Amino acid sequence: MIYPKIPLAQTVVQLCKAKGVKHIVISPGSRSAPLTIGFSNDDYFKCYSIVDERCAAFFALGIAQQLKEPTAVVCTSGSALLNYYPAVAEAFYSDIPLIVLSADRPKHLIGIGDGQTINQKNVFENHVLYTSNLKLDLKEDDVNGVEEVPIFQNLENKVETLLGLKKGIQEYNEEAVDAAINIALVKKGPVHINVPFDEPLYEVVNELSVKPKVTIAEKKLLQVDDSLLEDCVKDWNAASKKMVLVGVNQPNQIEQQWLETLAADDSIIVFTETTSNLHHKAFFPSIDKLIAPLNDEGFEKLQPDILLTFGGLIVSKKIKAFLRKYKPEQHWHIDQNKANDTFFSLNNFIKTTPNYFFSKLLPKTAPIKSDYYPYWKYTQESRLVKHDDYLNSIGFSDLKAFDSILKSIPNDTILQLGNSSTVRYAQLFDLNKTLEVFCNRGTSGIDGCTATAIGCAVGNNKQTTLISGDLSFLYDSNALWNNYIPNNFRIIVINNQGGGIFRILPGHKNTENFDTYFETYHQLTAEHLCKMYGFKYEAVSDEAALKASLNSFYSEDNLPKLLEVFTPKDLNDEVLLNYFKFIG
Amino acid sequence: MIYPKIPLAQTVVQLCKAKGVKHIVISPGSRSAPLTIGFSNDDYFKCYSIVDERCAAFFALGIAQQLKEPTAVVCTSGSALLNYYPAVAEAFYSDIPLIVLSADRPKHLIGIGDGQTINQKNVFENHVLYTSNLKLDLKEDDVNGVEEVPIFQNLENKVETLLGLKKGIQEYNEEAVDAAINIALVKKGPVHINVPFDEPLYEVVNELSVKPKVTIAEKKLLQVDDSLLEDCVKDWNAASKKMVLVGVNQPNQIEQQWLETLAADDSIIVFTETTSNLHHKAFFPSIDKLIAPLNDEGFEKLQPDILLTFGGLIVSKKIKAFLRKYKPEQHWHIDQNKANDTFFSLNNFIKTTPNYFFSKLLPKTAPIKSDYYPYWKYTQESRLVKHDDYLNSIGFSDLKAFDSILKSIPNDTILQLGNSSTVRYAQLFDLNKTLEVFCNRGTSGIDGCTATAIGCAVGNNKQTTLISGDLSFLYDSNALWNNYIPNNFRIIVINNQGGGIFRILPGHKNTENFDTYFETYHQLTAEHLCKMYGFKYEAVSDEAALKASLNSFYSEDNLPKLLEVFTPKDLNDEVLLNYFKFIG
Repeated sequence: MIYPKIPLAQTVVQLCKAKGVKHIVISPGSRSAPLTIGFSNDDYFKCYSIVDERCAAFFALGIAQQLKEPTAVVCTSGSALLNYYPAVAEAFYSDIPLIVLSADRPKHLIGIGDGQTINQKNVFENHVLYTSNLKLDLKEDDVNGVEEVPIFQNLENKVETLLGLKKGIQEYNEEAVDAAINIALVKKGPVHINVPFDEPLYEVVNELSVKPKVTIAEKKLLQVDDSLLEDCVKDWNAASKKMVLVGVNQPNQIEQQWLETLAADDSIIVFTETTSNLHHKAFFPSIDKLIAPLNDEGFEKLQPDILLTFGGLIVSKKIKAFLRKYKPEQHWHIDQNKANDTFFSLNNFIKTTPNYFFSKLLPKTAPIKSDYYPYWKYTQESRLVKHDDYLNSIGFSDLKAFDSILKSIPNDTILQLGNSSTVRYAQLFDLNKTLEVFCNRGTSGIDGCTATAIGCAVGNNKQTTLISGDLSFLYDSNALWNNYIPNNFRIIVINNQGGGIFRILPGHKNTENFDTYFETYHQLTAEHLCKMYGFKYEAVSDEAALKASLNSFYSEDNLPKLLEVFTPKDLNDEVLLNYFKFIG
Repeated sequence: MIYPKIPLAQTVVQLCKAKGVKHIVISPGSRSAPLTIGFSNDDYFKCYSIVDERCAAFFALGIAQQLKEPTAVVCTSGSALLNYYPAVAEAFYSDIPLIVLSADRPKHLIGIGDGQTINQKNVFENHVLYTSNLKLDLKEDDVNGVEEVPIFQNLENKVETLLGLKKGIQEYNEEAVDAAINIALVKKGPVHINVPFDEPLYEVVNELSVKPKVTIAEKKLLQVDDSLLEDCVKDWNAASKKMVLVGVNQPNQIEQQWLETLAADDSIIVFTETTSNLHHKAFFPSIDKLIAPLNDEGFEKLQPDILLTFGGLIVSKKIKAFLRKYKPEQHWHIDQNKANDTFFSLNNFIKTTPNYFFSKLLPKTAPIKSDYYPYWKYTQESRLVKHDDYLNSIGFSDLKAFDSILKSIPNDTILQLGNSSTVRYAQLFDLNKTLEVFCNRGTSGIDGCTATAIGCAVGNNKQTTLISGDLSFLYDSNALWNNYIPNNFRIIVINNQGGGIFRILPGHKNTENFDTYFETYHQLTAEHLCKMYGFKYEAVSDEAALKASLNSFYSEDNLPKLLEVFTPKDLNDEVLLNYFKFIG
């Protein structure tokens, strides 16, 4: 087998292997050659080559999101690294393990005007769990030429001293890489390992010269304190209005028995966001539909005594605004790592998994007689009827298109939603319960939705469909510059010629300034990009054509496919605003 | 006139106006609406709307590069800001004034799980000259509702206290914005101003409610200490081998009289990089051509006693390697702000402008009899003959294409060079002296060359031509998503189907791993992007067709144009490596 000659490169590659970091997304570069050689010559690794580092990192994020294990990105020195930042921040807020391996110049070549050189040390400090700034290997030459090294000229045992230093550096580096990867594994988030290399960069050897020490990442299940639990049980049993609200959550995470228990209690309503991947006929998906028409009286009726949350960030602005104004008496959040005080009423951070907490809490509780669930279930059902009535009454528009599209997605496949209006529209519909739904809600950026979806499609064998707005799709057009896109991958672009979401906000619609700086009106389409990157392309602009296209859109093909749906930009906002009035 | 209602937005906009920050590149967003409203409703400002923040920032950088004055970029909260980072780093190392205005959420909405929210504070710390983290305005409501504010309940004079606080915040913000813009103006580099806004964001008023205090940015010409100057004069007059090396340098910066004085001294050779924009028949452009064939004897002959440098970063790896090995006795660098110890021999950082230093030094020096200049001038001339002989002997290739292209560019226009092989090839030719030449050498990234060139074309009335490699062009394809591209803008893409530069490095050519992870072989062209973004497109793949195309390529047209030159990827490296052998 071929290995990079530089021991530090061997160290990084071997530790990734030892810890099961298998998927490596590599961008081209010379400084990073020792890592690229190491990863790409070992069949243990599945390597991918992606040129644009912004897309490379989101692609890696998509793979990690599916596998729930760390993926690594490898880049050269300089601004290449900075292009990872949007995905690093998304990984940070979405708790996705992403290992950034940046090659760097040796310290003596930084800040002296060398090319492709920036100050890489701690550059992601605000948004990583850990940074390891590794040290340059001492070379054989340094040891051989020790007599000439001035600082050693007055020392006894020059060679021994230098060998000791070399060993010390190697140990430091091993520990630093080991620690960073363990943190990504246990705490699920991004880490940055900065790896300085000196020339020559391309030399290879047939045997490893180092054997790095591996410590096993231990993931402790955090226990809940008994007295805390007792308090919880007491309060839970005493509350007649308990709201469970679930944000971004991986599929199949919560045991069915706990879902059944929650569903069987009239004092509990469970609000599930589209990204929660949690389903039960007694739960409340499409929260906005329920909340939008409420007046003060309704809000007071809905205001919970106890709010229990788990999962990641919440999409619905309406539930956030409601719970911030009508604060629950108590807000408990369950998570192993962190708790956001999203509603300014968090009083209990339960540091464990939902399953563990439910296993301790729910057996000690009993259903309570309450009209909380029955009342809102009834309200929800009436909303559903009105929802259908409204959809039947309107012309072709974003809302109407989403209705057809969301109904069309095949069972047991993956749905990736773009930011920002896409995920909000999707929240208005009760989705097919066999779908697994994902969206980059960590930073809610439009910058990497397509690359993430492609990574997801690669990381999972299921068919993946991305629904994206036009701006989000065009923003991430380089995502299609990717040789690994499976043929069953599908993209649906809702093209309303700009940032349609701004029409819904209280802006200054229909002025030139609005069109230019907020909506950013354009007449671009996805057609040329599809030709360029080998996607089959279809375009529709009415209901009948959309339905006809969707009929065959998901079936097997020899190329990935993109369907562009043109909707009337001047109507969409009115249709949506009237929707909220109508369903009340 | 319409102003944003929020005083902080007025403050930022008014201070930009007062300090002559005229060009504002705006990306769409809601949180930034107060700034967008403020800039776009005042005719003083020239506003641009660019969706992809990575391109927006490089576009702004291109404008600032031409105008030599600060331009501003405006974005919403969240990961949008992070996409500015590659351009911010380029501005940092290229000394280009770029003002980043990022809207942010109020502090109480950060880190609690709100959407589009990251930790923006000091996020560019490693690569900006200054960061101002502004404070949220106190609102009228806060003052009106002061009786209800708990912390004030035990205070006398509640309203006065709150009004005082409000005034204090306003003063703090004014000073912080003022300071940041002044630093960008004086020190020429990027600054970050983070601006928190609370809802409502879209309200407007007809009169300003604040009148921010403006302090004038004072730019002092730094004087050189007399005793230092005396030492310089003494050493300069005693040295028979003086090398002046000029990196990135704006056109028309150095007074002609000093160039003449340097040119008239046989003990001085002036090495000018392509990006130095410095010309004299006695100077030495295309340094690599001179240095590449040298052996140890030649290097010793060339080794200077005094190396005097000014300008920005040096492209030539060969001169760097030479001067690091054959160190000058003294290295002096002239710059008002910083000096890089690029050759590990810097002993004199002369903190002023080249013109000022020359005006003090050169009148006190006299030409010295030396064979330094004559010998190398003779060598240079023999290289030139061989250069022409070689060019006449080779078939179509990157090198041959550059020869035709560089000769074709019209007089008195601007040439933008892409990284990384483009600028290196250009260094081998003696360019048309009427051209102004630019390249993003701060970080030497391939990530924003096209957007920078477009910004340059907008910031300057002259015709601008960008020469780019295929990877660099594809990387920055979103740069073409820009409504401000002048019709006389031209792009020439040298398409060798991947990162041709890696074939020249000592890698592992012609293995599958090499093709995939280093060269990143592809078969993409610029044709579809041209159709998409309204460029006229031509493609050529031989010498005759290239020359024919270039004949009419620069003439007036009703669209910008792109010429794609396909070169044989398997020949290019051989042609170049043989060139260096041949010219010796």
